[in-house]
Amino acid sequence: MKELEERIAQEGRIIDGRIIKVDGFLNHRIDTKLLNRMGEEFYRLFGDLGVTKILTAEASGIAVAVIAAQYFDVPVVFAKKAKSDNIEGGLYASEIYSYTYNRKVTFLVSKQWLCAEDRVLIIDDFLANGEALRGLIDIVALAGAQLMGVGVAVEKGFQEGGKRLRERGINLQSLAIIEGVEDGVFRFRQQ
Amino acid sequence: MKELEERIAQEGRIIDGRIIKVDGFLNHRIDTKLLNRMGEEFYRLFGDLGVTKILTAEASGIAVAVIAAQYFDVPVVFAKKAKSDNIEGGLYASEIYSYTYNRKVTFLVSKQWLCAEDRVLIIDDFLANGEALRGLIDIVALAGAQLMGVGVAVEKGFQEGGKRLRERGINLQSLAIIEGVEDGVFRFRQQ
Repeated sequence: MKELEERIAQEGRIIDGRIIKVDGFLNHRIDTKLLNRMGEEFYRLFGDLGVTKILTAEASGIAVAVIAAQYFDVPVVFAKKAKSDNIEGGLYASEIYSYTYNRKVTFLVSKQWLCAEDRVLIIDDFLANGEALRGLIDIVALAGAQLMGVGVAVEKGFQEGGKRLRERGINLQSLAIIEGVEDGVFRFRQQ
Repeated sequence: MKELEERIAQEGRIIDGRIIKVDGFLNHRIDTKLLNRMGEEFYRLFGDLGVTKILTAEASGIAVAVIAAQYFDVPVVFAKKAKSDNIEGGLYASEIYSYTYNRKVTFLVSKQWLCAEDRVLIIDDFLANGEALRGLIDIVALAGAQLMGVGVAVEKGFQEGGKRLRERGINLQSLAIIEGVEDGVFRFRQQ
């Protein structure tokens, strides 16, 4: 998606050669207009698959997912990251390793909100090593639901996550794939 | 807001006499159509105040805030709850006590995304004791920005948070205020 690539090129920054910061429009300050056009693009890519539910993970996936869900006209379910008093029993759980927080995190989804009849589109803001998406895909499998596709805003193409998911035959579409950065200039994969 | 009160009456549940669960449409599974009409209502209540930014807290405030932000045509900034590798220095910080997780939580907002010129509307999904909102209001003050109002989806009117904020003269508007529950029937404050 050209517009997203341009925003990354203009405002994205690299930290320690590995972290790509796009927190000016995607995951701290949120540009809802850009997210709307991203939602439209996700709908163009996945709109004819009969999706019944969009699944994402808290926290920064939520914004991308709910704006996209307006186009699909389906509810969003977001996986919670810790057991709070407000979640009771009857949970699908999947443990992942969070490189963002350098610790294990358990994704939890109430069985009430995801069932075997669901045709699920997973949407997330970032894909690097793919741990978060692996956890969400696990949860879809635990529910016995059908995974229709995975939509990602920004993929770090120089990490292994995307490759692994595509090798599993998963219908993964990323709106921008960063192949690398040289002298502060982002290079994107042609799609 | 009549529609929200009706959904709470139909689908809300009480746990241990204190936790109100509306996770079927507001904070686990998200009904984006309902959130759209809530966003419209927030715009009716706060739309003429020249708001430049909407501030919320991760995680469940994000959905309500970004959908509302589409009506205001302003960006959303969400406070993060833990220091991740992806947030550098230059932060506004405010410590609150989370009754949901029974522990202290620090809200963090990058100084880059909130400044003294901002006219801020805070939006959150729930108001009970008011700790989360107190933290967000602190952050607006730390930024030297102007607090234009606080919009909440569901207020538990039988807890003290709302009363305390209104006593401080804050322009707080809640779309539904639950006064109590008797024999499983929700009673709402007339507004």
